[in-house]
This record gives sequence, structure tokens and C-alpha cells, in this order.
Amino acid sequence: MPDVIVDKAIYCDGVRESITGDISDAFNAARAQGDCFLWIGLHEPSQEEFDLITSEVSLHPLAVEDAIHAHQRPKLERYDDTLFIVLKPLLYLDETSDIEVGEINLFLGRDFVISVRHGQANPLGGVRHRIESDPGLLSAGPAGVLYAICDEVVDTYSRIVHEIEIDLIALEHRVFSGEYTDATADIYSLKREVLEFRTAQDPLIPVLEEIVKGRVELCLASREQFRDVLDHLLRVDATVDEHNELLTSALSAHLALVGREQNKVAMQQNADMRKISSWAALIAVPTMIAGVYGMNFDFMPELHWPFGYPLTLGLMVIAVIIVYRLLRRSGWL
Amino acid sequence: MPDVIVDKAIYCDGVRESITGDISDAFNAARAQGDCFLWIGLHEPSQEEFDLITSEVSLHPLAVEDAIHAHQRPKLERYDDTLFIVLKPLLYLDETSDIEVGEINLFLGRDFVISVRHGQANPLGGVRHRIESDPGLLSAGPAGVLYAICDEVVDTYSRIVHEIEIDLIALEHRVFSGEYTDATADIYSLKREVLEFRTAQDPLIPVLEEIVKGRVELCLASREQFRDVLDHLLRVDATVDEHNELLTSALSAHLALVGREQNKVAMQQNADMRKISSWAALIAVPTMIAGVYGMNFDFMPELHWPFGYPLTLGLMVIAVIIVYRLLRRSGWL
Amino acid sequence: MPDVIVDKAIYCDGVRESITGDISDAFNAARAQGDCFLWIGLHEPSQEEFDLITSEVSLHPLAVEDAIHAHQRPKLERYDDTLFIVLKPLLYLDETSDIEVGEINLFLGRDFVISVRHGQANPLGGVRHRIESDPGLLSAGPAGVLYAICDEVVDTYSRIVHEIEIDLIALEHRVFSGEYTDATADIYSLKREVLEFRTAQDPLIPVLEEIVKGRVELCLASREQFRDVLDHLLRVDATVDEHNELLTSALSAHLALVGREQNKVAMQQNADMRKISSWAALIAVPTMIAGVYGMNFDFMPELHWPFGYPLTLGLMVIAVIIVYRLLRRSGWL
Amino acid sequence: MPDVIVDKAIYCDGVRESITGDISDAFNAARAQGDCFLWIGLHEPSQEEFDLITSEVSLHPLAVEDAIHAHQRPKLERYDDTLFIVLKPLLYLDETSDIEVGEINLFLGRDFVISVRHGQANPLGGVRHRIESDPGLLSAGPAGVLYAICDEVVDTYSRIVHEIEIDLIALEHRVFSGEYTDATADIYSLKREVLEFRTAQDPLIPVLEEIVKGRVELCLASREQFRDVLDHLLRVDATVDEHNELLTSALSAHLALVGREQNKVAMQQNADMRKISSWAALIAVPTMIAGVYGMNFDFMPELHWPFGYPLTLGLMVIAVIIVYRLLRRSGWL
Amino acid sequence: MPDVIVDKAIYCDGVRESITGDISDAFNAARAQGDCFLWIGLHEPSQEEFDLITSEVSLHPLAVEDAIHAHQRPKLERYDDTLFIVLKPLLYLDETSDIEVGEINLFLGRDFVISVRHGQANPLGGVRHRIESDPGLLSAGPAGVLYAICDEVVDTYSRIVHEIEIDLIALEHRVFSGEYTDATADIYSLKREVLEFRTAQDPLIPVLEEIVKGRVELCLASREQFRDVLDHLLRVDATVDEHNELLTSALSAHLALVGREQNKVAMQQNADMRKISSWAALIAVPTMIAGVYGMNFDFMPELHWPFGYPLTLGLMVIAVIIVYRLLRRSGWL
Repeated sequence: MPDVIVDKAIYCDGVRESITGDISDAFNAARAQGDCFLWIGLHEPSQEEFDLITSEVSLHPLAVEDAIHAHQRPKLERYDDTLFIVLKPLLYLDETSDIEVGEINLFLGRDFVISVRHGQANPLGGVRHRIESDPGLLSAGPAGVLYAICDEVVDTYSRIVHEIEIDLIALEHRVFSGEYTDATADIYSLKREVLEFRTAQDPLIPVLEEIVKGRVELCLASREQFRDVLDHLLRVDATVDEHNELLTSALSAHLALVGREQNKVAMQQNADMRKISSWAALIAVPTMIAGVYGMNFDFMPELHWPFGYPLTLGLMVIAVIIVYRLLRRSGWL
Repeated sequence: MPDVIVDKAIYCDGVRESITGDISDAFNAARAQGDCFLWIGLHEPSQEEFDLITSEVSLHPLAVEDAIHAHQRPKLERYDDTLFIVLKPLLYLDETSDIEVGEINLFLGRDFVISVRHGQANPLGGVRHRIESDPGLLSAGPAGVLYAICDEVVDTYSRIVHEIEIDLIALEHRVFSGEYTDATADIYSLKREVLEFRTAQDPLIPVLEEIVKGRVELCLASREQFRDVLDHLLRVDATVDEHNELLTSALSAHLALVGREQNKVAMQQNADMRKISSWAALIAVPTMIAGVYGMNFDFMPELHWPFGYPLTLGLMVIAVIIVYRLLRRSGWL
Repeated sequence: MPDVIVDKAIYCDGVRESITGDISDAFNAARAQGDCFLWIGLHEPSQEEFDLITSEVSLHPLAVEDAIHAHQRPKLERYDDTLFIVLKPLLYLDETSDIEVGEINLFLGRDFVISVRHGQANPLGGVRHRIESDPGLLSAGPAGVLYAICDEVVDTYSRIVHEIEIDLIALEHRVFSGEYTDATADIYSLKREVLEFRTAQDPLIPVLEEIVKGRVELCLASREQFRDVLDHLLRVDATVDEHNELLTSALSAHLALVGREQNKVAMQQNADMRKISSWAALIAVPTMIAGVYGMNFDFMPELHWPFGYPLTLGLMVIAVIIVYRLLRRSGWL
Repeated sequence: MPDVIVDKAIYCDGVRESITGDISDAFNAARAQGDCFLWIGLHEPSQEEFDLITSEVSLHPLAVEDAIHAHQRPKLERYDDTLFIVLKPLLYLDETSDIEVGEINLFLGRDFVISVRHGQANPLGGVRHRIESDPGLLSAGPAGVLYAICDEVVDTYSRIVHEIEIDLIALEHRVFSGEYTDATADIYSLKREVLEFRTAQDPLIPVLEEIVKGRVELCLASREQFRDVLDHLLRVDATVDEHNELLTSALSAHLALVGREQNKVAMQQNADMRKISSWAALIAVPTMIAGVYGMNFDFMPELHWPFGYPLTLGLMVIAVIIVYRLLRRSGWL
Repeated sequence: MPDVIVDKAIYCDGVRESITGDISDAFNAARAQGDCFLWIGLHEPSQEEFDLITSEVSLHPLAVEDAIHAHQRPKLERYDDTLFIVLKPLLYLDETSDIEVGEINLFLGRDFVISVRHGQANPLGGVRHRIESDPGLLSAGPAGVLYAICDEVVDTYSRIVHEIEIDLIALEHRVFSGEYTDATADIYSLKREVLEFRTAQDPLIPVLEEIVKGRVELCLASREQFRDVLDHLLRVDATVDEHNELLTSALSAHLALVGREQNKVAMQQNADMRKISSWAALIAVPTMIAGVYGMNFDFMPELHWPFGYPLTLGLMVIAVIIVYRLLRRSGWL
């Protein structure tokens, strides 16, 4: 039995029965019993592995190709009596605040569920535990499984939106803290995350709407449960749109703050320049006076006065004081 | 009887009758009388408390879960013969100009209203007083109660939109007052508020539209009243959109003003630099002249002229005056 | 008779008959004659005044409340055999280039028109003159009155859009004149005006569309006339959208021009700085030379040369000329 | 016969017959022959002139008013058995790269076409030549004329869109040439042009769609030809939208380039300031040394050394060289 | 046989038969056999060449005109029993990271496919190989050919979107690397590419939707295959929209980084200015002291002190040290 099979079981009357032998036999046994269904969980199978395992059910080759190659957007396709559904579960990486996008491809029939998972995001283990402990869900058959998976995926969306909200608020605090920091790259990368989130989540809305409107026969009985999931998804969607719009504004606001910082730097520079020039003036004035009395004219009466020198020094001091006061008064010093 | 019950009463033929005993008995009594209905008001009940109180009516478990956990968006859901409605009342906090978002979950049947309130925003007390003093509303039964609550919630929206308008105009005055202030954070936070407002208010439009179009049997008779509420809501909606768009423009405009401020600072700096250099030139010229006559050449005839010194001083003064005039004429001084 | 009645008259077979006595009597008389209708024009009536005047016709209390309190958006509501229509006429104030938003609430029945006007914008006087001189309009009855009012209101929209266009073009000329001016506040306030305009005008489109599609029985015969009005309104709408988009671009363009102005200021500053430093260098060089020959060494042969002094002066002049030429060549002077 | 008649002719069985006498007679003659139709082309007629010429056909007065006053948006209106169509032909002025918006109002009946042209843009002459040389078009009657006009108008749109594309690419080259130029005003004016273009072209889409969907009986037989025109128009529309979006980005990009230019200017300024200060330092050091040896102390042994003077000069040179090297190493010189 | 024929063949029962003689004969032969169809591939034929080759089938002249002149947008048109389909294949040029837009015009009938290719982008050769080696596709007839071409074109879209994603991520790394680079032109040109991509790809969505909804009889049997192609196209579309929005944000973010760079330059300038002024002060102080002792007063006792000179030199050194320390403490040096 290849490694790609993560789990396989038959659920009859709300009870899990392990499959030990051949899948085909188990499948036929399940069919014979009536109210049973088989759930086979695969992880990144190759074409050959997939064909081997699902030989008992007839699946549309294009859907199978999609399921094996992954990289689909969320969608729901009806092929005769089977449904093909693609979901994009997300995984929030705490260390980096990054989002990883996974993919779940589901084939649903009256009596089987085949799930093909790609990537690390893995809500299916939890779902199996939940449905196995909730007879109500099991009795809804494959539709119950689908509901439980959708519910889990959308719940993860809610949690991640909440994490993004926290990141956004932290970013806002940083940007508007009064102290200038460069948040451009962080705003942009959060914006990118929000857009990637939206690309994963947005196409799921029409999928669920179709189920809620009763256009998917297999899920008819569980419509109200799907409506509940849709409702949560719509709330996620509204919040994502709000975040997206807020981040655009945050980018603009940050730009204004960068400009404000420029003003601060320029005003600081001007203040410095004024201070520097003031000190230069304070030195230049006595230097000029000293130059005058360093001239070598024969007839410079001041040079021969007994108090010429101290008077000149005094003149220098007074000149400096006057200039200092003038500069003070005009706010340059 | 648990504390979570805020109020409970039976309304028969437009008259309020208090319930003293068991809710179930009261409920059965009300049903027996025909034109009566029961209104139980709860505040953040636990699952157990809720189940105990509502044991007499059969409510859909998913709706009950929503009502207890809150965090829904406005919606209307039909379950057989009961309606489940979520409203998001808002509370404007005067001190901080902030908005607080509450939640009201309503279960409506032919003969009962169960309201579950979360958060501080509390329009229900006022609504009870209003319907108890308006026999017309009471005679409309649960639909009348729903109308009165919607009307009150949308009225609060109108008042808050008005407050936001006032905040926005004050912000515009600050931004465009001619005097530069940093309004970036305030514009952004008003934008956030407007977006949060819209998230609370926008999904209520399709809810009311469905009632107005007559698709909700229980409210058929009160359609014109709901149309009135919807109309007010649409007006709120248009104003919110206008505010949102104005705030985006205000952010751009503020950015231009930050740039203008930069120009002002740079021009001030340039003017200062010119003034500084002018004064430096005025000092440098006599200093240079003094340097020349400080040289020790044997043959410097000027040094021996009797009027050499005063002439040189005069030369200095004249040079300073000429330079001063040149600088004045070119606008540097 | 209260002052709130602006005008009242009965129109029979295209002829105006004044009402002198009681309104109820006039009304009954008009009804008896068959092809007549009554038009009562009110201005900001109180609830009591309104009830007194309209006692003869049964109007829906919610519509009456709307009409008295005003602050509605344009809408059309059908109540049994009466129509309730809200229009938002605009008034362009030449002195301030501002727009004032008024409100007209209309009740239309088979044989009456009750108009309730709020605010200064007053197209109704002109409409009365027009219909009284146009028998074709009068013969269309209340629908003709409604058409004439809508036509007048939309005509005012056209005129105001034209005024806004003129303001916008003037603003563009100012912004792109080559000479820098600060137009931020003006662009923003024009944007605000355009948005207010749109809020008043936009909801009228579905109102007129409903009439044009023939869903309003009372106006069925005048559909083509209303189509004409709708067409004008759609043209107004397209122009308003164009203005709105242009103003957003104008804000961005203005921002670029503010930046360009910054570049100009900075380049001016740099040119000034170069010029200043050049002059400083021209003074510093001879000052340094003078300093050298001011030294008191015993053995400085130049000092004893007979032509030492004029040679040094010549050296200074030559040094200044060389430096001057170097600076000229590098474009600093 | 008034001058406003640009051309008039009867087309019978694909052959043009000139009208020499009275229009009414010609019209009646054409009607009598069965497969004929009359085309009268008018240019900015007055109400009286128009009424005189079209006395034979009954046109709706509102459509006539529109046709005479012009300033309509593209539209199609059905009045009993006549169609009223408005088109906005454009004229590209090579010298100024400006667009001029004209207007064609068309009345179409089973056996007549009345075209009313306003403004300089004139595609009708070319259309007449085309249909007169294409019997297939003539045999389609008035619908063929309408098709030929629409085709010509949309062809002009295509050509102008191509001119705008050329202007846009030239603008992009200028903006991103590496050399800074101020393109703000040009980007804005191209944006204005694109928006005016869109206002003229956009409302034509639903007009053609209505014809293509077969809702216009008169044009039923020519649907495929109109589909071809619609297709060209949709291509024009997509390109216009792309241009509009690109111009918004160009404005933002230009803003960034203005900012980059600021950086360049500021860095140039800094480099200059460093160079200036370096030269100032180179002069200040020997000046200071000279000052020291200009002091008049009695006991300054260096002054009496025989080689004091040349040593000091050497000291100055060495100091200058050292400072020069330091400045060079740190990149200031 | 003209050179414009790239390939021609008859496919019968999944087998390719070459055509050696006349096309008309081959065509008639194919028709006679029942389950055969003809595929003629043309490259930029002239009108004459096209007419000659397709003389056997009746194609609508407007479609033929479109096919020969190219420059269409993706579309699907039904003419009686033939389909006319336009596709826009893209070619990614590795050297320049540019996109080249080609065009394929297809005529599909029950028993023929005529493909007209314009430009360099050429997916048809690959398609021929694929269908000739896949009997399932061949047995679907012309619809199979159409499917294979659409699949190939959309696959190329996927690959190019992936290349654009790589370019975008590289651009993001450059912009946010911390080191400032001017990425404006690159962001803009990637934006232009994305918009051109969207113009080529967007109109294909409704074409495929129409086929998937079963409105195109010829392709009814292959609906599920076309749904698969549509699905891939929708994924491309979502990614393109995400890229477009991200590039707008990248432009804004880049603008903020340009502003941050301005701040860095300005702060560097300020730091330089402080350093320069500090050194100037260090030189100016001893120069001033030297000037004082260069004065020629008769009575300057210090000049006659035996240690006057060394004391003064010491004073200068101490003054310089004090000023140096002050400047250090305030962070200017």
C-alpha cells in the first residue's frame, strides 16, 4: 500500500471501521451495506498511485489531473454523480508572520470521499477527529465531511484574519507613534499577504453560495450548516477588504510622515546653520578689529595711547556682547 | 432566575404584563391567549443559561451558537417559522471620538421575541419604553419590536455619521487653516473609524431590502415602516461613502501641504543662508584691507602718509557701504 | 391661514383659479369638477400646520414625517394612490462658488399636489409660472407638475455642473500656469463640492428610471418627457464623474508640482551657495597673502625689495583673477 | 431654401436622385415609389429652419429640441415608428494633439434619414460617398445609413485612440528617459483628453448593444454589421481604460522621479558643500600660521632664525598638502 | 498554392491525411466521408489569397475582414452554422522580459477549421502535434481543435503570469533591499505589461463562459474540457489582478522609499555641515588670538613678557582643545 495514503476508513452508521485489506473490497463491502461511506485521504499522490487507489470509482480525468497537479483556485464542479471541490487552506507561520497556502482537492460521491492534500496546511486530521466524535455529522455522510472541512478551513481563515488585524494594529502603532520609523516594507508585505489571502478566500464564496442556494443535490440536507460557514466567510471577506483599504491608506499616511520627517530634518538643519553662523560672526568681529590695529601706518594715534590696548580689548568684548544679544533676540542663538 | 435576563414580559393587546413565575408557564399562557407575545431580553448568556431560558421554543442550534458567541455580521436567516436577525448597534464615545461596536441577536417567532445583547451599545431599553407607549407598535407584535429596534439602531447610525461629519469638518479646518499642523494620524484614524462603521452598517442594507421587498412573511404588514428605516440607512450609507472618499482626498491634500511646508522651510533656509553670507562679506572686506596694511614691506608709501590711517578706515567704511548696497539691491539683505 | 403656505391654487382645464376660502372646500369643489387639481405649496411647515392644511387627503404618516423633518435623499415611494417624491434642488452661490442643498418633498395624487420646500434653493416659483403659461403641461395634471419640477431641478444641476467645470478649468490654469501657487485647499474644496453634488443628484437617477420604465402609473402618459429629463441627468452624472476623477488627478499632479517647486528651491539654494563660496574664496586668497607678508621674520627679503609691495598687490590681483576665471569656467560664478 | 441644408437626395434602388424642387414633393414622390428613402443633411439649423424642412414627417418635439440644442450624450430613443439617435464624432487636431467633440443627431424612419450635425467633426460627407458607391448599403435603407455613420464614427475613435497611444508612449519615453523633465502638465492634459474621449464614447456601447441584441426593429436585418461596429468600439473602450489606468500610474511614477530628482539635487548640494569647505580649510590653515608669525612678541625666536621665513612657508605648504590628502582620502575633494 | 498556407490536412476517424491536390476536391471528399474534417492553417493571408483558399465554404464577409486585418479583441461570433473565434496568444521574450501579442482567428464549421494566424506568437504547431497524437481530441472534431488551441493559449498565459510573478518578486527585493535604487521605470513598465496582458486575456473569459454554459452548440460535447480551460484562465485572471494591485502599492511604497532616501541625504548633509563648521571654529579661534597679538599698540605688556609667545601658543592650544571638547560633547564632531 503506497505511502501517499494518509488515512482510510469506512464509516457505517456513525462508526469508523478500519480497512485492512484491499481498498476495492472494502469499497464494495461499504456499498453493499447501504448507509456507509468510505473516506480515503491522500497526500500529493502521483498519477499512477492515484489511479491505483481510485480504480473502483469513475472520476473525470480532468478533475483527476487538477487534483494531482494542484495549483487550482477554490471551485466546485459537478460531474454526473460526483462533486469535485477545491479548497485553499492557509497556515499562519508564527515566527515570520507569513501565510502558507495549501490545497485540498475533494471528490465526493454518494458513498465515498477522496481527499487529496497538497502543501503543509493540514486541517484534515482535526476534521477526522471531529466527525468521528460527532455522530450527527457522520450520519450526514460525505456532505457532513465536506461541511466539516469547509468549517475548519474557514475557521482558520478567521484566526488568520485576526492575526493580520493584530499585525496591522501593531504597524499602525509603529507608524503613528510620533517617532519616525521606516515601515514601508512592512506595510507593503502585509498588503501582499492580504492580497494573497483574498485570492485564496474570495472564490470560495460563490462555491458556498451555490450549496446554500440548494443547487448541489448532495449537500441539500446540510444547507443550513453551509449557510453558517458562508456567513463566517463573508465576515472574513469584509474584514479582509477593510484591511486592504486600510493598508492603502496607511501607505499614504506613511508617505506624509516621511515628508513630515523631511521637514523636521530641514528645520533642524536651518537651526544648526543659524547657530553656526552666529558663532562665526562672534569670532569674525574681534578678528576684524585686531586686523585694523595690526596695520602699520605711521600715524595711528590709538596705538600710542597708554590705554589703547585695553580699550581695544574692551571694544572687542563689547562688540561680541552686542552681536550676541542681537543674535539672541532674533532667535538664532 | 439567572442574572443574564435583563427584562421579560408578555404583551397582550398592547398591554405589558410582568412575568413573575416560570418562563415556560408564562409562555404557554401567552400562547393560549392568542394575540399575545413574550419578549425576553438576555445579556451575554452562557450556552447553559440560554438553553434553560429558551427551552420552550425550538431554535436552530447554529443560530443559537451564533447568538451566544456573537461576532456576527448583520444578517437575516429564516428557520422554518422563526427568524434569526443580527444587528450591530454602535456607541459613540464622546471623550475619545471613538466608536464601539455592539451586537444584538434576535430570535423572532409568531408569539415571541428573544433578544441577546453583547457589548455596551444598548438601544434595547429605549426601544422597550417606546413600544410600551405606542399601542400601534405593540399591536404589530414581534415585527413591531423588530422595526422599533432597527429604527433605533439606524437612528444611532445617523447620529454617529453626524458626529463623524463634525470631526471631518474640524479636521479639514485644521489641515487647511494655512498654518501647518501634522494631521496624518488623525485623518488615518478617522478613516479607520469610517471603515469600521461601514463594516457594521453595510450588510444591514440587504437585510432590510429583503423585508421591504416582502420576502419575510412575519414582517409583511410592517413593510412601509421598514422601508422608512431602509431609506434612512441608505442615506447613512451614501454619507459614509462620501466621507470615505473625502478622507482619501484629505490624505493626498495633506501630503501636498507637507510638501508645501518643505518648500517654505527650504526657502527660509535659503533666505537665511543669503543673509548670513551677506554679513560675512561685510566683515571679510575690511578684514582683507586691514591685512594688506598689516604687511611689513619697507616701501609702503601709504603707511607714511599722515592721513593714511583715516583714509584707510574711510576706505573700509566705503567698501562696506558699497557691498551693503549691492547686497540690498539683489535682495540678499 | 398660516404663513407657511407659499401658494395655493386650483387648476381646471388649464386655467388657474385662486383659492380664497377654506382649503377643504376648495378641494371638494375641485374634486367635483373632474379634470381639476389642487396645488398647495408649503415652506418648512410644523407638524400641526401640515396636518391642518392636508386634513382632506390621507397621507402616510411616515411620509409626512419625512416631509416635515426633511434631510431625505431623493426617492420615490408609492402609498396606495399617492406618490411621495423627494428631490434635492441645488443653489449655486456666486460670491463663494459654494453649493447649497435644498429639499422638495412632493405628495402627488390624482387631483392634488402638495409641495413642501426646505432651504433656500427654490425652483418652485419658476415652475408655477411655466406650467401656468403652458396648457399642455397643465392638462397632464399632477404628473405635468412633477415633470416641470424635475426638469427645473435637473436644469439647475446642468447649470451648476457648468459652473463647476469653469471653476475646474480655472483651477487647472492656476495649477499648470508654470508659476507655482498653492492650490491644495481649492482642489480639495472643489472635490468636496463635487461629492456633495453627487450625493444630491445620484439617487434621482433610479427614481426617474422607474418612471421612464412605466412603473409609476400616475406618470405613464408623460414617460417620454421624463425620459428627456433622465437623459439630461445622465449627462450631468457622467460629467460629475469625470470631474471627480479629474480632481483626483489634479491633486496628484499638484503634488508633483509641489515636488518640482522643491527641486527649484533646492537648485536655487545650491546656485546661491556656490556663488557665496566663490566670493568668499576671492576674498580669502589676498587675505592669506597679506597674512604672509604681515609676518615679522627678520629675514624676509621680499619685504626689503623696493617693488615688494606693488608686486605683492599685483600678485593678489592676479590670484583673484585666476580664481575668478576658474570659478567662472566651472559655472559657479 | 435655407443654407443649413448641407445635402439632400432621394435614394431609390441604390441610385441617388437629386432633389430640385420642394422637399415635401420629393418626399411624397419617394414614398409613392416604395423602395426609396430621403436623406436630408442639416448643419446647426434653427428651430424655424428645422420645422420648415421636416414639416412632412412627425418627429417628437423633445427629440427635435435635443437635435437643435445639441449637447446630448450618445443615446437611442424610440418614438413610435421613428428612431432618434445621438452620436459624438471626434476630431483630432494634429497641431495641438487636442480632441474636438462634435455631435450628430439622427432621425430615422422607414423612408427617411434626417441628420443634424453640430461642430466641426464631420464624418457625414465621407459616409455619403461610401454608401453611394456601395449598393449593398443603400439597399439596406436608413439602417444602412446608420450603420455607415456608426462605422465611420467608431473608425475615427480607433484612429484617435491610436494617436493617444502614440502621445502616451512619447510621454513615457520623456518621463523615463533618465533625464529629468517636468511632464506633470502633459500627463494631466492627456488624462483629461482620455476622460473626455471616454465620456463621448462610453454611452455608445449600450446603444449598439441594443441594436445587436435585435431590440431595434428597423436595424434587425443589419445586426451583424452593427455587431462588427460594436466589436471595434469595445476594443477602443478597453484601450481607453488601459490608457486611463496607465496615466494614473504615470502620474505616480513621475512623482517618484521628481523625488529622485530632489535626491540628486540634494546630493549635488552636499558634494558642493564638501568641496567648498575643503578649499576653505586649505586656505584657512596657512592664514592661521601667518597670523601666528604676525604677532609682535619680543621674544619669538623663530622670527630671528635665518631660515625662519622659508621654513614657515614650507610648513604652510606641508600643512596644505596634508590637509589636502586627508580631504582626498575621505572623498571630499 | 500560395505560401500563406502553413499546413493543411484532412482528419478522418482520428487519422491525418495529407492533401496533395486541390483544396476544393479534398474538401468535397472529406464531406462525402462523413466523420472527417479539414484543417487549413494560414499565416497573414491577403484578401485574395484568403478568398481563393476558402472558396468552398461560405464565411461572413465581416468575419473574413476581421480575420485578414487582425487587431481584434478575443471574441466569439456565431454566423448560421459557422463560428468565428478570435484568440490573443502571447509570447514572452526572455531577453527583454517583454510580451508580444499575437492573434489567431478561427473559423469553425461542422467539417472544417480555418485558422488565420498573425504575429510571432505561434501555439498552433504544437497543437497540431498534440491532437494528431490524441485520438480522443481528433474524434471531437473541430471542437476538439478549438479546445486544444484554447488550452495551449491559456497554458501560455499561465507560464507568462508565472514569469511576471518572478519579475515582480525580483523587483520587490530590489525595492525593499534596504539599499536605495531607482525602480520607478521598472515598476511602471511591469505595470504596463500587466495591463497589456489583461487586455489580451480578459475578454476571453466571457467567450469560454458561453461555451461552458452550453450556448455554443458545436462545442456542447466538450463542455467539461472547456470548463477546465476556463478555470485555468480564471486563476490567471485573479493573479493578474493581484499583480496589478500590488504594482500600484509598489509604486506608492517606492515613493515613500524615495522620500526616506531624501531624509537620509538631508541628515548626511546636516552631519557634514556640523563637522565642517566645527573644524572652521577650531581654526578661527587661534587665528583670532594671533590677530590680537599682531596689533601694534605701544603698550601691550604681554608682548614684552619673556614667556608671552609660548604662553599665547599654549592659550591657542587650550582654546582649541576646549572648543573641540565642547563640539564633541554636543555630537558635532
